[in-house]
Amino acid sequence: MGRIMNFNAGPAALPTPALERAQSELLDFAGTGMSVMEHSHRGKTYEAVHDEAIALLRELLAIPADYDVLFLQGGASMEFARIPMNFLLPGGSADHVVTGAWSEKAQAEAAAWANVVGARARVAVSTRGPEGAYVRVARPDEADLDEKAAYVHFTTNETIHGVQYREVPRFGSAPQICDVSSDFLWKKIDVKPLSLVYGGAQKNIGPSGVTVVIARREFVERGRKDLPHILQYRAYAQANSLLNTPPTFGIYLVRNVLDWLKGQGGLDAIERRNREKAEVLYAAVDARPDVYRCPVEPASRSVMNAVFRLPTEALEKKFLEETSKHSMVGLKGHRSVGGIRVSMYNAVEPAWVTALASLMKDFANTHA
Amino acid sequence: MGRIMNFNAGPAALPTPALERAQSELLDFAGTGMSVMEHSHRGKTYEAVHDEAIALLRELLAIPADYDVLFLQGGASMEFARIPMNFLLPGGSADHVVTGAWSEKAQAEAAAWANVVGARARVAVSTRGPEGAYVRVARPDEADLDEKAAYVHFTTNETIHGVQYREVPRFGSAPQICDVSSDFLWKKIDVKPLSLVYGGAQKNIGPSGVTVVIARREFVERGRKDLPHILQYRAYAQANSLLNTPPTFGIYLVRNVLDWLKGQGGLDAIERRNREKAEVLYAAVDARPDVYRCPVEPASRSVMNAVFRLPTEALEKKFLEETSKHSMVGLKGHRSVGGIRVSMYNAVEPAWVTALASLMKDFANTHA
Repeated sequence: MGRIMNFNAGPAALPTPALERAQSELLDFAGTGMSVMEHSHRGKTYEAVHDEAIALLRELLAIPADYDVLFLQGGASMEFARIPMNFLLPGGSADHVVTGAWSEKAQAEAAAWANVVGARARVAVSTRGPEGAYVRVARPDEADLDEKAAYVHFTTNETIHGVQYREVPRFGSAPQICDVSSDFLWKKIDVKPLSLVYGGAQKNIGPSGVTVVIARREFVERGRKDLPHILQYRAYAQANSLLNTPPTFGIYLVRNVLDWLKGQGGLDAIERRNREKAEVLYAAVDARPDVYRCPVEPASRSVMNAVFRLPTEALEKKFLEETSKHSMVGLKGHRSVGGIRVSMYNAVEPAWVTALASLMKDFANTHA
Repeated sequence: MGRIMNFNAGPAALPTPALERAQSELLDFAGTGMSVMEHSHRGKTYEAVHDEAIALLRELLAIPADYDVLFLQGGASMEFARIPMNFLLPGGSADHVVTGAWSEKAQAEAAAWANVVGARARVAVSTRGPEGAYVRVARPDEADLDEKAAYVHFTTNETIHGVQYREVPRFGSAPQICDVSSDFLWKKIDVKPLSLVYGGAQKNIGPSGVTVVIARREFVERGRKDLPHILQYRAYAQANSLLNTPPTFGIYLVRNVLDWLKGQGGLDAIERRNREKAEVLYAAVDARPDVYRCPVEPASRSVMNAVFRLPTEALEKKFLEETSKHSMVGLKGHRSVGGIRVSMYNAVEPAWVTALASLMKDFANTHA
């Protein structure tokens, strides 16, 4: 069949040209007679791909020279552990801002490590509501911040709850660490106020199995030096992420996606496209409050993951059957919250969102 | 160009049919209108691939039901840290058998963790010779084993030094943990005497970015329960390796490779093929002791990575130029030891080794 309208929350739709490029050269990369995944990670052929992926990230985000760009493995969840292992020392304390399931999990993993070494991973503020619902981001002025904290951790976008900071916030004066897994490169952000930014690739920039870390070199150097090397950001930085064999094919695909993104006009162009998609989708929700209800406060609504409910679970099921008939997939809400979730990452075509909005209108007329 | 004779040490040659299968369905997997890497890791389509990869491993190795088969990320190097984190408790001790660069590194990483928690990662025996050379595996009777050790760690094949146990050894009565990264599935092994077996995929079974762990469930359950979940084998086991998003495309390729392996006649057939390749290669080395010299003792010579030297570095350079002219790549020895290295993993065709042996004969005649 042809390519489907894929609204998956992650792993998610990738740009077709990035995949076509991979397909065409899968058995013979750059005339070398082998796949890029069969190349040595220490050879010039792979190294050029690796360095191009880093250079594209540096260019797209205007990353300053005193920041390292690293490729790691294990997903954001591994960084939930690696961050406190590096920066949360015995007797120390870290602040967590909790605005959904992922920032909750990051805090829980940090707390486990804190218990092991005798430190603290505090919840500086949580917007958790009744029955575990999250409907908004946190304001810096409501956070109980410890200015001596080793760092403050927050999550820019919550995929499950559909809650996003549309501007990167700042919580006090401690080093700011930020999980951007699900909205990385949705628009240009300034990394200079941030000490460490990280994200799994599998939403906006590639397949699962690659994690991007962007961190101020001086901050990286502060990390513990007595851990196994594989757990130290410093060791990756010193080795240009070639500390051990990196996920070469995943990084190659990230390169393809970033090259596509640049060809689309870069981050300003993709931001306009993303904002337009979100406007179309939320307008379709708000146009029929008798049928659709987004629980998230308007200012915190995610551009990447729009969540909404219908009056009954039976109607939600019918809605998903209807979208499925129209070749739209991945719209079921996360099992922990139910309802509908529309993930509109960079590779999701505006035409798909328009088609979905149109279907929502028809569905509301039929089932109101 | 056509497919080249790829003798890379890892990432390494993959079976062409496994790559062709990936190529043909890269944009439309199983008629779903999307790539396998765009599928949710929680969906039925990906789950079937994931479970098939595990089932194929279980079938090929006859893995008992009380063993878990896990897919992790970070390469064997991550397990160098995760193993002691799970099993080397404060006040405890682990034994390491050191027979090359990789078992050395595993011990060093374990020692770093041991220092953090107040434990010991002992070298029970090392076959390290003058100037850091390793020319043989270790015998159990020469190891200073602590029968109360939390575990004994050894490495079945050393890629850099070309040293291999052709039969899996047993070091005392403590739980046996074994790194099989570079000779996993070269033949059938019995996992029952082993508590935990692990290896990066990028030699014999797939691309980089996937690690396979096979472990006795009862042993996994002994691991520390207070670490961040992402560092606990138990958590992966409980979640069928879907604790967080796994490297789905890498696991899919592992599935393709395992399916190819089964189609080749399974592990008995591949063992015959691997032994034949190694015999041809070492015969070419031994036939011309005036030109080629393998430093490794005959009983410890690796079936996977044959290393040898020529009389001078200039002649080694010439040899590599000559092989390169004949479309053979990846033959340069590791930078730490120099010389020539011929990696003959499962996907390396016997015809390539025969062609190389023939070239070696001609080269010797010309340059003796």
